[in-house]
Amino acid sequence: MTIENLALRTQCANAIRALAMDAVQAANSGHPGMPMGMADIAEALWRHRLRHDPADPRWMNRDRFVVSNGHGSMLLYALLHLSGYALPMEELRRFRQLHSRTPGHPEVGVTPGVETTTGPLGQGISNAVGMALAEKLLAEEFNRPGHEVIDHRTYVFLGDGCLMEGISHEACSLAGTWRLNKLVAFYDDNGISIDGEVGGWFSDDTPGRFEAYGWTVLRDVDGHDAAALDAAIERATAADRPVLVCCKTRIGQGSPNRAGTAKAHGEALGEAEIALTRQALGWSAAPFEVPAAIAEAWSARESGAALHKAWQQRFAAYAQEHPALARELLRRHRTDAPLTAKAEAALASAASGAEQRKSSVATRKASQQVLDEVGPAMPELIGGSADLTGSNLTDWKGHRALKGTGTGNHVHYGVREFGMAAIMNGLALHGGFRPFGGTFLTFSDYARNGVRMSALMKLPVIYVFTHDSIGLGEDGPTHQPVEHASSLRLIPDVDVWRPADATETAVAWRQALRRVDGPSCLLLTRQALPHAGDAGERIESIARGAYVLRRPEAECVALLASGSEVGVALAAAALLAQEGIEARVVSVPCMDVFERQDADWRHAVIPRHLPRVAVEAGSTGLWWKFVGEYGDVVGLDRFGESAPAGELFKLFGLTAEVVAERARRLLANAALANVKEAA
Amino acid sequence: MTIENLALRTQCANAIRALAMDAVQAANSGHPGMPMGMADIAEALWRHRLRHDPADPRWMNRDRFVVSNGHGSMLLYALLHLSGYALPMEELRRFRQLHSRTPGHPEVGVTPGVETTTGPLGQGISNAVGMALAEKLLAEEFNRPGHEVIDHRTYVFLGDGCLMEGISHEACSLAGTWRLNKLVAFYDDNGISIDGEVGGWFSDDTPGRFEAYGWTVLRDVDGHDAAALDAAIERATAADRPVLVCCKTRIGQGSPNRAGTAKAHGEALGEAEIALTRQALGWSAAPFEVPAAIAEAWSARESGAALHKAWQQRFAAYAQEHPALARELLRRHRTDAPLTAKAEAALASAASGAEQRKSSVATRKASQQVLDEVGPAMPELIGGSADLTGSNLTDWKGHRALKGTGTGNHVHYGVREFGMAAIMNGLALHGGFRPFGGTFLTFSDYARNGVRMSALMKLPVIYVFTHDSIGLGEDGPTHQPVEHASSLRLIPDVDVWRPADATETAVAWRQALRRVDGPSCLLLTRQALPHAGDAGERIESIARGAYVLRRPEAECVALLASGSEVGVALAAAALLAQEGIEARVVSVPCMDVFERQDADWRHAVIPRHLPRVAVEAGSTGLWWKFVGEYGDVVGLDRFGESAPAGELFKLFGLTAEVVAERARRLLANAALANVKEAA
Repeated sequence: MTIENLALRTQCANAIRALAMDAVQAANSGHPGMPMGMADIAEALWRHRLRHDPADPRWMNRDRFVVSNGHGSMLLYALLHLSGYALPMEELRRFRQLHSRTPGHPEVGVTPGVETTTGPLGQGISNAVGMALAEKLLAEEFNRPGHEVIDHRTYVFLGDGCLMEGISHEACSLAGTWRLNKLVAFYDDNGISIDGEVGGWFSDDTPGRFEAYGWTVLRDVDGHDAAALDAAIERATAADRPVLVCCKTRIGQGSPNRAGTAKAHGEALGEAEIALTRQALGWSAAPFEVPAAIAEAWSARESGAALHKAWQQRFAAYAQEHPALARELLRRHRTDAPLTAKAEAALASAASGAEQRKSSVATRKASQQVLDEVGPAMPELIGGSADLTGSNLTDWKGHRALKGTGTGNHVHYGVREFGMAAIMNGLALHGGFRPFGGTFLTFSDYARNGVRMSALMKLPVIYVFTHDSIGLGEDGPTHQPVEHASSLRLIPDVDVWRPADATETAVAWRQALRRVDGPSCLLLTRQALPHAGDAGERIESIARGAYVLRRPEAECVALLASGSEVGVALAAAALLAQEGIEARVVSVPCMDVFERQDADWRHAVIPRHLPRVAVEAGSTGLWWKFVGEYGDVVGLDRFGESAPAGELFKLFGLTAEVVAERARRLLANAALANVKEAA
Repeated sequence: MTIENLALRTQCANAIRALAMDAVQAANSGHPGMPMGMADIAEALWRHRLRHDPADPRWMNRDRFVVSNGHGSMLLYALLHLSGYALPMEELRRFRQLHSRTPGHPEVGVTPGVETTTGPLGQGISNAVGMALAEKLLAEEFNRPGHEVIDHRTYVFLGDGCLMEGISHEACSLAGTWRLNKLVAFYDDNGISIDGEVGGWFSDDTPGRFEAYGWTVLRDVDGHDAAALDAAIERATAADRPVLVCCKTRIGQGSPNRAGTAKAHGEALGEAEIALTRQALGWSAAPFEVPAAIAEAWSARESGAALHKAWQQRFAAYAQEHPALARELLRRHRTDAPLTAKAEAALASAASGAEQRKSSVATRKASQQVLDEVGPAMPELIGGSADLTGSNLTDWKGHRALKGTGTGNHVHYGVREFGMAAIMNGLALHGGFRPFGGTFLTFSDYARNGVRMSALMKLPVIYVFTHDSIGLGEDGPTHQPVEHASSLRLIPDVDVWRPADATETAVAWRQALRRVDGPSCLLLTRQALPHAGDAGERIESIARGAYVLRRPEAECVALLASGSEVGVALAAAALLAQEGIEARVVSVPCMDVFERQDADWRHAVIPRHLPRVAVEAGSTGLWWKFVGEYGDVVGLDRFGESAPAGELFKLFGLTAEVVAERARRLLANAALANVKEAA
């Protein structure tokens, strides 16, 4: 490397430093330390290795780049701007301002070139593991001899925070087991986290830890030495395992008084220190200005276009030789593609089959029956379970188990719920797959922020949460969800389905698979549930989130329920009918979808003029909106117990008798009120 | 070891195997594989090393024993029964039956001798890290030369599942950093998890991983060889670091056809296989019978009483020499002790001081002001933060930072929210401490099942969750909680406080500290909040969870709010008053506590005869119970945005103007309804 070249590279890195400190200063908010510390690594990777096309951030075969330490968002915005993405300087000036394309943390869908939303630490690296898995599986499925149309890498920047988070253990362990050799992570080993020097709370031998996962580890790379970085990247891209490049860096590098301190991490340097830093860096350009020579050196528009074009030519040759494969790959790559006719037919068959069979079956089993039909019709499906395959029943006839270094379409994630969620997010972000994965509903807690990130990123990930209530039985309160259905409903943009029978389960799957802009949770029983009944053409009604299952002529009370308690409500209605009290029964398989219906439908299904009792084996809180304050809710606002399921439903009063009694009481109160009013 | 002795030891282990398989068979539910696989390890530890007194499971200086792989509960029940705890055979016969003392997973408080509730994998080992930390800190604080009154160990059994879970990384990393040499974990390395042979999803070099944490690792110990186990335990208890004893075992050891297979894990062996197993083990006793010689060999009643008595003598000597310390240690050990007069006085001073200062202050800062007063008055307090100390403001004047191998009363947990929660549970379980810890409210997601476990175990852990809404501002939607306040409220037995000003913050702290039977969450703002106003003696009203803050004479509408939106509601009331519309304003700092009040209080505070509007910068769902279906809720059921906080409150309509407008609309609707009714 010539000295002139080295000087240019340093100034290219300094462009990132200057933009980061200027943008944070303008916003008076943000994190300059990481961009300034990782600028040289970014220069080495982006200017000399990354294969991407700024003109088409959705190019299928681009390398993926993930900033797992997402607070360093200005590094990414600087890179995107400098490389030539549609992110003008004006947006960098509006860093962290309302509706800018430069939010505080990188957000996919907001900024062209941002591959995933990061900030919640540890999840970016885990998304990246999912992306690298997607690449491997797509390559396996679609490449043909002489036609490597899928052949790209996933690069990750991460810091101490990501490495401290437990999810990094889960995802990186799997990356090692899967031997994802196209995954390269750069560890920003600056020795600083928010509370100060990390030695007091983070003394891991991180290289040793990653070697224990089966990664290739490049130790002690000088993160500010371009030649050392080039050599490391060269070695990293030749490895046969995932690679951790351990880069010694200084947080806030370039700032004379802040570099190497926690103070550099999360606040503006201040005008005086910025002036000193400019001086120290030899950077004389005004804020938000980049000298033409540096801008030119950074632009990847030409090189990116050339890479992209070369690939398009390769893809054309592939398409000529393998037209069906090429078409299918293009279809799979579209993340907003509607379901194929074949998939729709399979789903229709699953629903109508269930409706005709009228069998009593656990909804987890009904779910597997749906998968048996849909699996062969949707090659983009990739299932999995967090070591509960035989309980979640996420596998299906003819699935191929993905274990170790092999490939397949059903992933054994091991006991790693959060890792599973974030890896599924990565699979969905990469494109080519529709991931779903299972665990017990209680352990949705472990995965919870991953579910939230699916929703925030509008990813159609499907969570199969089985053993959805005290119906789980003997395993006891640690394993019995109580608050989980409702607390998942509270996460914005998550559709939570709790089907009452096999037909509702099939429709829930259909709706979840049709959805392209957000996640769905399927809450399924361990225990068998009876067929809920035929209400004419109920399949389309189910899809609206709630519908009338029993509608007697002289109805005077309404019973609302979801999942396993729909049967309880129907039985309560039968008890009441014996006394001449006619109850409407409303099944509410998905509160979230129901709330998106127009008011006419909502009031027609849950009429305000009837006294209402809701029943669900879980928290009561969200049901009051539907029954009104003079209604009643039969539920469970306490922890469960270890005992056979049947005994628990009785113990906690989740029975037809109790629901009927509560309905009688409501009617008596209403009558009393009428008498009082008349008096 | 003589052959006879070895045979006795094997039969002692077989007693565990027999009880486990018989109990699981009787329940037709449960997990025989782990107890049968770890029986020899349990025999070596419990019969030859563990220092405990079955007659007093609360003996302060007992060794702690944690079954982190809690599905192996029958191992623990067998051990407790055989050792002589108050767990008669009748209870083992009732394994997993309603209200037995032998629930499906071990539950603290249900079974004498169970130290923590386990089942959710990875948390038991993390609790144990907390227990070992408690032992270290108590010893440091209370032992005096010649008086080692605190000197015990924490032993853990764990399996592959615990090691796959991310939380095991968080907690074990800290155990290494803290060099908790009295922590010894036995890894049940049987190569099997629920989905089968673990190699396909768990290929870590676990010894290497733990060495990377700074643990001492004993590799390749034969988990079925008593002599090897004795030697390993000897080495483990001499180490100067936490120890992982890697025991090669066979799951379901003893069962001719199930041992070594996933089928041994979680289902009854069946009568035929049990008969074969009895034969193979040379165990001829009937189900739930233990030969007298074996029973006698197991009993730890005498040896335990002797150990306990010897300690009592040592304690008496200590008490003579250090009477104040001894009294204090005994006080600290009582988990249900009321606050001291000194602590109460500090809390009273904090509340009345805040009420008098009337200052505008962020509630996180107000919280720190409370700690400044209470910290010196409560030596049992142990604070901490998941690497956000300067943001959560969990430290206080004169706190001592716990970092690395040192001691202190404010723990730098690093970026490990879930680990922090489970370690705090361990500190609380051990006794001697009142732990609290902080992170951003959004990242309560990461810790969520730990919060649930605090509640399930009735532990008075305090969670300080700051940056409690979009008021966090520029960091954007990944960092802005929306659903979190409500979803924490949904967890049974968790008290969620969202105070509106410094006075409410002080009262929230007081109530949280007074509570001895469950956790509390304090949801605190980043931004300054004004003093909410003086409503006479409001301090005791705040403690009831909701109270009237503004009560005009001719009130015609009620505005309910929590936290930062109380100010919004008060401003809306002022706007409405200008038009002659008089609004009551109700502050709801703690919905959970409010719901426990009698109906008179509840209806007096939130009157049903007034139209009601609630406002909270978060999910609306839970508020409908309080406003009724004809009321209204101003909230946020979508994700936030990255922008300065003030702009976000406006953007999302969380303003006095919007609340006032909604109130006007409610009143107009009510008037219309009256007209209609009259017509």
